[in-house]
Amino acid sequence: MAEQVTTLAAERYPAVDLVFHPQCFLSTGHFAGSDALRAASFVEIANDATYHALWFGRGGYGSCRIAEDALGKLTEAARGKLYLGYSDGGALLGGLYAMGFGDVAHGPMPADITRTGGEAAVARALAYLADRSPDGLEPSVASAGKTAAFNMMTFSQLIGTPLQPDLTGHVLMLEEVSEYMYRIDRSLFHITSNPAIRRVAGIRLGRCSAIPDNDPDFGQSEVEIAQHWCRVSGIPYLGRADIGHDAGNKVVPFGGLRTA
Amino acid sequence: MAEQVTTLAAERYPAVDLVFHPQCFLSTGHFAGSDALRAASFVEIANDATYHALWFGRGGYGSCRIAEDALGKLTEAARGKLYLGYSDGGALLGGLYAMGFGDVAHGPMPADITRTGGEAAVARALAYLADRSPDGLEPSVASAGKTAAFNMMTFSQLIGTPLQPDLTGHVLMLEEVSEYMYRIDRSLFHITSNPAIRRVAGIRLGRCSAIPDNDPDFGQSEVEIAQHWCRVSGIPYLGRADIGHDAGNKVVPFGGLRTA
Repeated sequence: MAEQVTTLAAERYPAVDLVFHPQCFLSTGHFAGSDALRAASFVEIANDATYHALWFGRGGYGSCRIAEDALGKLTEAARGKLYLGYSDGGALLGGLYAMGFGDVAHGPMPADITRTGGEAAVARALAYLADRSPDGLEPSVASAGKTAAFNMMTFSQLIGTPLQPDLTGHVLMLEEVSEYMYRIDRSLFHITSNPAIRRVAGIRLGRCSAIPDNDPDFGQSEVEIAQHWCRVSGIPYLGRADIGHDAGNKVVPFGGLRTA
Repeated sequence: MAEQVTTLAAERYPAVDLVFHPQCFLSTGHFAGSDALRAASFVEIANDATYHALWFGRGGYGSCRIAEDALGKLTEAARGKLYLGYSDGGALLGGLYAMGFGDVAHGPMPADITRTGGEAAVARALAYLADRSPDGLEPSVASAGKTAAFNMMTFSQLIGTPLQPDLTGHVLMLEEVSEYMYRIDRSLFHITSNPAIRRVAGIRLGRCSAIPDNDPDFGQSEVEIAQHWCRVSGIPYLGRADIGHDAGNKVVPFGGLRTA
């Protein structure tokens, strides 16, 4: 996987000097290395000013386990780089943005290379890493003002913690994967019931994929659910977002458009 | 089910005049009636001073959908009664306790009659409803001071909403069912990372049942996970709680021991 991504980067974005930290290849039970090791690796790269970006290798689960420890160790050097990832990585992206880091983005990760059409996803991320190419941006970003994007459940479980960023005036994009419809409903209840989240400019719904069958049928689509909770909470529902757990996942910069 | 519970109540607790609201028998997609109808039924019974208790019929999913609407319509009469239930009902129990309702308890529901040994669970609840029998109380309640109990995921998704009660100084008991170990971990990250929750007197872990297999194995038991997050958050881990999604589920009054 790392090899495929390295080859792709060398071919198409030779200006990008891509380095996989050895920790990416570790395996400790559920995780790619112990909490202490994953936190140390994150902090090592983040605090090293010779790296211009920190690209999360993959999602899964575990970034919330290292967030409090790792974020507490970041220095000024860490503020000067781009952080790119999504899914479980949202816990760290949220925490970084909550700390005022100005260059955080939701977008494809190296592990996406294994998806059908995954090369396009990885190339999109590399183009953004290389020169902030606007080609891979989520289409509404250009005119949205401030933006942010998260996996729904990951974001839900940041609410009320120090990792929850202030999204006042932001368009909040939310995508989900492999969650029952009633859980999508419950997560959107949770997110839209938080008083701070009620100050967002609006919500856009990303793709909700691989939804297990609900028995009986939930009776509402994910769009109807999002519209329901937007109505209840007084948050404008702004339509769909071109993000999701798939090869089509576009880049959403936190805080809105940035140029290189 | 209602018949079985009614018979049991008549035989063993003839002083209890048990009334099933017709809404309990409705079916609208995923729910026992529309949101409007379920909210109206809840409010009708809650605000009727001739009822001494409101007993949630079952869990599942949906109480968060009616919480904001229903709780907003409660009158003084609603404060004078006991509310008993668990699981999904935690959204309303939490909201009621957040509003200062003094007689809220986590314990078995009529639907538990269908479990193996379920009669004992229902009898335990009836004993508490009838005369606050201490026999069915979770054993640590007697000496715990203030207490509260929730399903983990239900409680996680109340964090940062108006339904989150102030549990300062409370022993917080948490149980879970049918969640992957990594999700138990993530929920406990979430709950213990909330600054207000860090003011609880301690956490007791209820039973975590029907945990689907994690591949690879998560590498930690639910007790180790709870101990981990208690250590990280500085919350005392107080051991196990005799609650869970099972017939052994004991009664936990919110705020601590009450007598009839």
